[in-house]
Amino acid sequence: MEINKIQHSKLDKVDPNNSAFGVNISDHMLICVFKDGKWGEPVIMPYGGMNYSPALMAIHYGQAIFEGMKAYKDSNDNVFLFRPEKNFERFNKSAERLAMPKITKEIFLDGLLSLIDLDRNWVPTKEGNSLYIRPTMFASEEMFSARISNEYTFAIMTSPANSYYDKPLKIKIEDYYTRAVDGGVGFTKCAGNYGASFYPTKLANEAGYDQVIWTDSKEHLYFEESGTMNVMVRIGDVLYTPPTSNTILSGITRDSLVTIAKHNKIEVKEERISVDDIFNAYKSGNLKEIFGCGTAVVINRYSHVAYRDFIMELPELDEKNSFAIFLKKQLVDLQTNKSEDPFGWRYKVEKKL
Amino acid sequence: MEINKIQHSKLDKVDPNNSAFGVNISDHMLICVFKDGKWGEPVIMPYGGMNYSPALMAIHYGQAIFEGMKAYKDSNDNVFLFRPEKNFERFNKSAERLAMPKITKEIFLDGLLSLIDLDRNWVPTKEGNSLYIRPTMFASEEMFSARISNEYTFAIMTSPANSYYDKPLKIKIEDYYTRAVDGGVGFTKCAGNYGASFYPTKLANEAGYDQVIWTDSKEHLYFEESGTMNVMVRIGDVLYTPPTSNTILSGITRDSLVTIAKHNKIEVKEERISVDDIFNAYKSGNLKEIFGCGTAVVINRYSHVAYRDFIMELPELDEKNSFAIFLKKQLVDLQTNKSEDPFGWRYKVEKKL
Repeated sequence: MEINKIQHSKLDKVDPNNSAFGVNISDHMLICVFKDGKWGEPVIMPYGGMNYSPALMAIHYGQAIFEGMKAYKDSNDNVFLFRPEKNFERFNKSAERLAMPKITKEIFLDGLLSLIDLDRNWVPTKEGNSLYIRPTMFASEEMFSARISNEYTFAIMTSPANSYYDKPLKIKIEDYYTRAVDGGVGFTKCAGNYGASFYPTKLANEAGYDQVIWTDSKEHLYFEESGTMNVMVRIGDVLYTPPTSNTILSGITRDSLVTIAKHNKIEVKEERISVDDIFNAYKSGNLKEIFGCGTAVVINRYSHVAYRDFIMELPELDEKNSFAIFLKKQLVDLQTNKSEDPFGWRYKVEKKL
Repeated sequence: MEINKIQHSKLDKVDPNNSAFGVNISDHMLICVFKDGKWGEPVIMPYGGMNYSPALMAIHYGQAIFEGMKAYKDSNDNVFLFRPEKNFERFNKSAERLAMPKITKEIFLDGLLSLIDLDRNWVPTKEGNSLYIRPTMFASEEMFSARISNEYTFAIMTSPANSYYDKPLKIKIEDYYTRAVDGGVGFTKCAGNYGASFYPTKLANEAGYDQVIWTDSKEHLYFEESGTMNVMVRIGDVLYTPPTSNTILSGITRDSLVTIAKHNKIEVKEERISVDDIFNAYKSGNLKEIFGCGTAVVINRYSHVAYRDFIMELPELDEKNSFAIFLKKQLVDLQTNKSEDPFGWRYKVEKKL
């Protein structure tokens, strides 16, 4: 791996502990180019422009995928990743569905470790803050034929991320627009999934909602995801979440929360959740919590969930009674080395560079 | 509009009459940037790199749309566009669904006319060749938050395109993968639609087919599009094509062929076409032609159409008997000023620059 260090760090102008999500990109990025049927040598270089033209194929044909990960610092300035091999595996599943080459474990994981090691001063120390990590791969040939690209660029960039204030959200259950369909790309983290979701979300925002819960494409009756997160529902003392599928992203936060819940003797059912189930639980007083979960926000609780004109108001549970608050604390404590790691999920970034 | 001309044309190295589709990009491009809620001044400049970083939001979230158009030369070196206002209208429909700002008619059409005028020497003269035109708009802010971008770049680039040899294709009717769904983005020319289609097309290629016919997402029984084209079916002497919808692109070639067919007393029915309809017509000997139509290829005829293990072989009609060959000639003659233009579709690019 070639490493070209910056001359002067931008850290004299950026405070990682006070940095809005995704805005300040760290000093270095990793770049690796796929050409003539094979990956070249990965290079760590100063983050910046790459001279792409507007004919970049990723812009025209959407062969573009990404992952979202985080690095955390403990009180001794040790830096940890969280289950990075899961992101690596999912990245390659996305790549396959988008007809893109797979990345090797060496380039992805070794590249990641070197990059985070080099920019470890960008990992925030303030509680709840972290370094957001964005691996991406995109078609980087420049021409106009609507076909599979022959060239790709794999890049990893990072950016300090403030703690996201978990204000309970008002949610609309979407009954017209569709995020994903059987035989489509819903299970991948491809660029097209996000752009397609912005307009329905904007309409929900204009109607007074913060976010949408996506439902199945056929009947719009079964919960799928919420915004760009997986969704969980607590009815009585049972936690429900739809099973991952070809329309539902296999969320790593989702999987981790399910595991932590079970480990703490909370009953979890990975089952389809219908709007009817939710209505019935609400009417009987058993609907306790609905929340979204994902890497960026960890957990977002919902205070109001609407289906057409019917608005369900959820109880405001305190930290003693909320599964969401309990699970979030368990997960973040594990990620930041404040608690034991019975699952072997923490991944220390050794200081080498 | 600002115009920065190239120092030396690349035409001393590129022959527009012998240029594979989309590979050689012409001397100039038009660029216009949307920022702080408004479009800036369009600039025509030499085509080339723009120093985008891999954090370009279009790459991550797929807010990226395009159009495909062509410019044609007649035997007197006059240059014509074809129904450009239709592309302008459709571009803004795509923009709305992708939560992007609309482009003004002035920037799109006046920009287009100036760019084509300036690069008129790039328009091929050889019969059947044309200058392919690629207007595009994409999110050009650089950051990692999954939200609507605040900045966009509108660009027009062009590239000489060889005549595409219309070899009759072998087609698979797709019965698992899905291109578009109600409530989705199928009716737009957004980047994500193309990337999502490459893998199913690759699988069809590996099974010996050239292309797929996409079917509805619910039952996979109704024809939608074919590859990146609209699809037409001739049963007896009636031409059928599925009505445009929120899953089927409102093709300009499709609309033009329907109009030309009706003008020539061919009966056209814009109706849903089911696989059963096709089977029944095939068995009774009435299935005459199936073809795709779009800007890049005009018309692509199909020789074999397969649904699962059942392969339908279509008759090889000559130019006297084929609707496809007849309609293609009518359309291309009109586009290249070889025939009258009863519909007012030709749009002359006046020499001003």
